[in-house]
Amino acid sequence: MKRSLRDLSDAVEARLEGDENLQLEGVASIDSASESDLVFVEEEKYLVSALKSKAGAVIAGEFAANSKGKPLLISAHPKLSFARAARFLQKGADRHEREKSIHATAMVDHSSQIAPGAVVGERVVIAGDAEIGDDSRIGAGCVIGRGAKIGRNCEIYPNVTIYAGTLLGDRVIVHAGAVLGSDGFGYVRDRKSGRYEKFPQVGKLIVEDDVEIGANTTIDRGALDETRIGRGTKIDNLVHIGHNCRIGQNVVIAAQTGLSGSIVIENNVVLGGQVGIGEHARIEEGVMLGGQGGVLPNKILRGRGVAFWGTPAQPVRQYLKQLAALARLGKKR
Amino acid sequence: MKRSLRDLSDAVEARLEGDENLQLEGVASIDSASESDLVFVEEEKYLVSALKSKAGAVIAGEFAANSKGKPLLISAHPKLSFARAARFLQKGADRHEREKSIHATAMVDHSSQIAPGAVVGERVVIAGDAEIGDDSRIGAGCVIGRGAKIGRNCEIYPNVTIYAGTLLGDRVIVHAGAVLGSDGFGYVRDRKSGRYEKFPQVGKLIVEDDVEIGANTTIDRGALDETRIGRGTKIDNLVHIGHNCRIGQNVVIAAQTGLSGSIVIENNVVLGGQVGIGEHARIEEGVMLGGQGGVLPNKILRGRGVAFWGTPAQPVRQYLKQLAALARLGKKR
Amino acid sequence: MKRSLRDLSDAVEARLEGDENLQLEGVASIDSASESDLVFVEEEKYLVSALKSKAGAVIAGEFAANSKGKPLLISAHPKLSFARAARFLQKGADRHEREKSIHATAMVDHSSQIAPGAVVGERVVIAGDAEIGDDSRIGAGCVIGRGAKIGRNCEIYPNVTIYAGTLLGDRVIVHAGAVLGSDGFGYVRDRKSGRYEKFPQVGKLIVEDDVEIGANTTIDRGALDETRIGRGTKIDNLVHIGHNCRIGQNVVIAAQTGLSGSIVIENNVVLGGQVGIGEHARIEEGVMLGGQGGVLPNKILRGRGVAFWGTPAQPVRQYLKQLAALARLGKKR
Repeated sequence: MKRSLRDLSDAVEARLEGDENLQLEGVASIDSASESDLVFVEEEKYLVSALKSKAGAVIAGEFAANSKGKPLLISAHPKLSFARAARFLQKGADRHEREKSIHATAMVDHSSQIAPGAVVGERVVIAGDAEIGDDSRIGAGCVIGRGAKIGRNCEIYPNVTIYAGTLLGDRVIVHAGAVLGSDGFGYVRDRKSGRYEKFPQVGKLIVEDDVEIGANTTIDRGALDETRIGRGTKIDNLVHIGHNCRIGQNVVIAAQTGLSGSIVIENNVVLGGQVGIGEHARIEEGVMLGGQGGVLPNKILRGRGVAFWGTPAQPVRQYLKQLAALARLGKKR
Repeated sequence: MKRSLRDLSDAVEARLEGDENLQLEGVASIDSASESDLVFVEEEKYLVSALKSKAGAVIAGEFAANSKGKPLLISAHPKLSFARAARFLQKGADRHEREKSIHATAMVDHSSQIAPGAVVGERVVIAGDAEIGDDSRIGAGCVIGRGAKIGRNCEIYPNVTIYAGTLLGDRVIVHAGAVLGSDGFGYVRDRKSGRYEKFPQVGKLIVEDDVEIGANTTIDRGALDETRIGRGTKIDNLVHIGHNCRIGQNVVIAAQTGLSGSIVIENNVVLGGQVGIGEHARIEEGVMLGGQGGVLPNKILRGRGVAFWGTPAQPVRQYLKQLAALARLGKKR
Repeated sequence: MKRSLRDLSDAVEARLEGDENLQLEGVASIDSASESDLVFVEEEKYLVSALKSKAGAVIAGEFAANSKGKPLLISAHPKLSFARAARFLQKGADRHEREKSIHATAMVDHSSQIAPGAVVGERVVIAGDAEIGDDSRIGAGCVIGRGAKIGRNCEIYPNVTIYAGTLLGDRVIVHAGAVLGSDGFGYVRDRKSGRYEKFPQVGKLIVEDDVEIGANTTIDRGALDETRIGRGTKIDNLVHIGHNCRIGQNVVIAAQTGLSGSIVIENNVVLGGQVGIGEHARIEEGVMLGGQGGVLPNKILRGRGVAFWGTPAQPVRQYLKQLAALARLGKKR
């Protein structure tokens, strides 16, 4: 759906310079933009190419004020404004397209509650006592277990499996193939027979508001208690989160990172890709851990804004010194 | 379904102290227990809180004998007894709930054999010449290829894909999104064109009894021969097992570990998370390999109960000495 | 379908010795072969066991010329000829079995174009404006998004999710559970609230001809522009490829490797398993990177045929010297 530059400027709280009636439909990169697209420039050096591009309008910082050539949206945080503009334009498009309904091929148990504004796609299976909130969309082929609850404005992409009893807040996005609430990996060995017997995995998984979960990521339910993903946390593809983990708010977890059981990740932590963390470890508020870093079981990493790296993870400056020393040593003979 | 403490005590072979007619429904942690729950205590220091909790009864070691306050099940291995109690209570619940049938929306080829006690869920697709054993449950959205055979008492969670010809034993659990029997990663390079041509991947995958396979794990079929997962082996989420691997019995493989082709893992091996093993390596009986450890192609790790760590994997004591030496070196300048 | 040795010899361009009318049905290993199977021998030392096996015929190098006991196909590249023979035999079998049609339970939007020779499996969902090319096969449970285009002769295994707008060339193979074209992992942090807001992920994913993609692998669409997988590239299971990556031709990526955003992988690169590469890195033509190797953001690896290993990745000889020095150091005290 087209939106005027005036509407966009209001929506993203940016100062408008130029034709307020210009109609825009989407966002694009400078190279790929067409006349109905908005582009953004964060650094002044890219401003000229943005102004020369085919884009209809440009979001940029104060440095662009009074530039000629295209209508402008001037923002203190152009990338953030651009992200919001994209969402604003997308919302319009969605509203148009969505049919608010339960597809005829979906199998919804009569004891489940689907809010009137929810969209349930083709071939979805929803077991008994489940709830789907208003304006939430469940993609084709998803399977929602008994008693699972999904809040409002969620977007569940196709072929996601949500185990029984899992709870999702509002505005949660789950990408295709993700598995939420699966059994944790817990066994008790019978010393006599040498066999592993399954320890009960009957806890819950709770995913708070505004979380995004990547494609084919797996998050296990608690064994007896809960696994919890805090509000605003973003999780990339193919991440594994084991049973009883407690992830804080606004945590970022890059692809293929794995958390074994009973780990605490406090608010605002950033985990790079392929990080591995042992059970019962604690990563405290604001720590950053570089890609492929490893944390031993029961360890604590501490320090707001402190970057760690390596296995076992160390403060990055200390680790770089070790790498440098090793490089020198390797050259000696 | 409720069970009396007497029945539980018989089922898990624990000594009963207190009201044998007490009815229990589930298991829980000490913190979350309600009156119909059983809890367990492995260490004496937690006994007081268990006795003060809301739980209906407590499984504990001999140290708890004659304690007052709650009915007790005294066991030499309280955690193991607790796991068995949980299964015993769950079985009752399942028997109640399960409808033994093929769902009307399942597509089952007429040449397949579904045992009368099997449950085939919504939207399942079962190709020709497949077999599903008695009391096995196939979750919604699963796709079972031609000639695949699934034994008795298996639990296949939703959206699992089982390729043609794959064989599963009895009591196998497969979590959502897992892919069993996919093509291995094998190509032959045509030196003239520089292109890779697919090497045939026409072998089998055989999964023996009592194996559990985690969510979104992938196990490839053999190229020409078989891939085999031995009896009682437990595999976590997002694990990759390549073609022609032979995994022994009672092996434990934690999340995100990857095995390339033609690897032998002998009985009772424990692999931590994110371990990587190169082709044709052999991990001998009872070896333990720490998280993120790496084993080069063709290498052999040997030693019952010996822990290895690092890449390339070394005995952990030796590796820790190297890490310590490196740390000292890094401090020198 | 049976094929004569004469037909096989023509198809794989190998010299025939012996009964040209011999009928073969499949390929096998020397140990598992039956009379209707073809086997291959690359090294002379295995020739005797091949000739003694139950196989109907043997593909081998010149060293086998004039051997007695079985019909032979003599080839300069026996493994390559064997791979082609397998494909030739398989094609015959497929032609027999395939029903060219759209299954009654598939949901295909009327605005989509399905070529007459395509096969669309059970429960497949194809959104509007999608295209499926001739002789392509879409497995049960796949979900194909709006405007996605799949070329000719593709094989899409069950439960694959292809997001809207994704483009696949011809002869692309996608294994079960893979997710193609999902949103990249990009956010802008609002410094005031501390929250992450989603950066638009509205670009495309383009997969060129002859690519194979493993089970449960995830490949994200571009943020604003495209992600591209070059012709002939082979990708194993559980691989992650982030937004805006540009992968060249005939690249090999082993299982569980992860590429974050905006990475360039040039032609003929080989990446081992569990490799991790940081954003904006560039791996130049013909580089080989060993398993678990890590490349920092913005780094460049260069050198046709040069092997790198370790994190941060270094030329393998240099890295081995460091490991050796470290081992000596660890022994000192």
